[in-house]
Amino acid sequence: MDESRRNELITTYRDGLLGDTLPFWIKHCVDREYGGFMMSLDRDGTVIDTDKGVWQQGRFTWLLGELYNNVQPRDEWLELAKHGARFLDDHCFDPADGRMWFHVTREGKPIRKRRYAFSESFASIAYGELFKATGDEQYAEKARRTFRRFLDHNLNPLGVQPKFTSTRPTRGIGFPMITLVTAQELRESIGLSDADRWIDRSIDDIRRFHLKEEIQCVMETVSPTGEIIDHFDGRTLNPGHAIEGGWFIMQEGKLRGDASLVQTGCQMLDWMWQRGWDQEFGGILYFVDVNGRPVQEYWHDMKFWWPQNETIIATLLAHQLTGDPKYADWHQMIHDWSYAHFPDTEHGEWFGYLHRDGRLSSPLKGNLWKGPFHMPRMQLTCWQLLTASST
Amino acid sequence: MDESRRNELITTYRDGLLGDTLPFWIKHCVDREYGGFMMSLDRDGTVIDTDKGVWQQGRFTWLLGELYNNVQPRDEWLELAKHGARFLDDHCFDPADGRMWFHVTREGKPIRKRRYAFSESFASIAYGELFKATGDEQYAEKARRTFRRFLDHNLNPLGVQPKFTSTRPTRGIGFPMITLVTAQELRESIGLSDADRWIDRSIDDIRRFHLKEEIQCVMETVSPTGEIIDHFDGRTLNPGHAIEGGWFIMQEGKLRGDASLVQTGCQMLDWMWQRGWDQEFGGILYFVDVNGRPVQEYWHDMKFWWPQNETIIATLLAHQLTGDPKYADWHQMIHDWSYAHFPDTEHGEWFGYLHRDGRLSSPLKGNLWKGPFHMPRMQLTCWQLLTASST
Repeated sequence: MDESRRNELITTYRDGLLGDTLPFWIKHCVDREYGGFMMSLDRDGTVIDTDKGVWQQGRFTWLLGELYNNVQPRDEWLELAKHGARFLDDHCFDPADGRMWFHVTREGKPIRKRRYAFSESFASIAYGELFKATGDEQYAEKARRTFRRFLDHNLNPLGVQPKFTSTRPTRGIGFPMITLVTAQELRESIGLSDADRWIDRSIDDIRRFHLKEEIQCVMETVSPTGEIIDHFDGRTLNPGHAIEGGWFIMQEGKLRGDASLVQTGCQMLDWMWQRGWDQEFGGILYFVDVNGRPVQEYWHDMKFWWPQNETIIATLLAHQLTGDPKYADWHQMIHDWSYAHFPDTEHGEWFGYLHRDGRLSSPLKGNLWKGPFHMPRMQLTCWQLLTASST
Repeated sequence: MDESRRNELITTYRDGLLGDTLPFWIKHCVDREYGGFMMSLDRDGTVIDTDKGVWQQGRFTWLLGELYNNVQPRDEWLELAKHGARFLDDHCFDPADGRMWFHVTREGKPIRKRRYAFSESFASIAYGELFKATGDEQYAEKARRTFRRFLDHNLNPLGVQPKFTSTRPTRGIGFPMITLVTAQELRESIGLSDADRWIDRSIDDIRRFHLKEEIQCVMETVSPTGEIIDHFDGRTLNPGHAIEGGWFIMQEGKLRGDASLVQTGCQMLDWMWQRGWDQEFGGILYFVDVNGRPVQEYWHDMKFWWPQNETIIATLLAHQLTGDPKYADWHQMIHDWSYAHFPDTEHGEWFGYLHRDGRLSSPLKGNLWKGPFHMPRMQLTCWQLLTASST
């Protein structure tokens, strides 16, 4: 990557983050009346559903703290992060069992709890950044407690009816991936004492159960002992998700100076780029079948924003860690395709949901799943990577 | 509609049913080893997932019995209907609580039960046709029992954790619609004694809670007292579903000679045609927002097979009942668009999942949701309607 391309990319990511993504969300989503953030925004930022997704409360709070701690200690960012944490504290925990809700009303009344516990993992990294920003030990304690709750619930779910019978048990890549990245975040923010143990265990699980050398593939869902389950759910791959897992592992390799981890992360990227990159239209497909059969999910061939975000990070990081020019090519392909199709040139930010050929499917800027997370994390991470590499 | 168009349509529906749809499924889905039907078929009929959806076991069994009773008493159809009913009997009920599963393995081991109880309603109409075909009172008793179970579970669900808290209770149009059509079927097949009471109650609920004269709309989901819920889920309309409900009510009006019911059914069609017909590409959209806002479901603008099937029936029936030429025009529009895009000219049957513009999204012929039901029901119903009108 030459100097001018690097400078151009730094500008794109940094100015996109600070001059577009952040102002868009800060302007439109902050609820000064009831606290927290309303993320269901139409393309121009109009709130079209006042309900609040708990994932997004935690994720935006984390982002604001992360920016305060790593970019600039702006009072506005810290104030908004505390604003997010207060809503989490006051409205997002079920007093009956200590678990977190998934979806609450504007006022914070509960609508839905999920069987899984990702609300807890996102809250824990949010609290972690607030500890780092303020030194207030209460935040560190909340970060540890919600991380513990996330782990406990996933390892031994109590009080929930399982979705499936015990006929065909499965193991998903989501739990080790989120455990890994959450422990990485908490190691950095609160110095979580057993972070490395959880990271090692998660990477070990991913390598042992989900990576299939013989077919060059990262399986999203396998049997408890790692066998491929030859049914729709077992055959369905999520390339953008596996690529996201790949860069989490590359980052760990970079930090530890462990070439074998870098290699594993790059392998995940290599395999899933081959399976997920859309040769016909460009971009990363949402789902593909491991054997090239039809997928059952209806939106399998759509282009969502986040798999592109994660692939932009992974290809850039892989290039920096290995120097292999193919990763620079891939980074340019995914960056250029994404920036040609996702940005809303009229109202700012990115659209989230395109058809396979890049045409707009929905103008939504946010909902229970899309908020200020994958995009600004990509912008921040790539800006940091490119800046560090120039020194 | 002139004579030649009518004859052409009769040929299309009748020959499509008897020469394409039925042979396709009978050839590919019958499991002679473990019983029942495997419906997850690739475009050429290859079974790509051996799991069995319980809805489809009941629905195909119903279709086979319906054909035996109303088209021709072919031994093959009766034998296959009994084959389906045996699998329902032997593998599709949970002995622990008497409820039916939603998804089982090829061998009939349970994978999943749903919170709702539509497996029961489809099984009940299947048993009903088998009673009519054989006179065996055991089938009638099973039909009554599963219908009762469907009603009881929906009116007073026991033993399931609700998906949502009690913060924002809702009422869906699915329960009264399925109650209505199931009672219609059981009145015909087993002479269900309280069928009219359930039909009246269901139509009354639909009229009272879901029909909104002031905005010319059929709401899919409302508050328990019929208010519009101004959040994603409450604003989301399912035009093809509402149009299906419309023809159920038209049929009841036709049978009873009740003009007010015919008018209600036509009104549902009128309103939802205006909202669901895709002015740009043709066909019926899957979901639209009552206020024209973005919808949260990702596949909102896809063209699925079944909303087209239901609209083909509804427009034809409305034309026959009212003589209004607009319905003949609409019937021609939806019929022609559907037949231009959905049939698989190479391997037969219809594709199920197209993009908004009619391009293929998935070549699947069947899965847990698509099987021999909406399409052959359309072919049979339209063939019968056109034949009856020519005498």
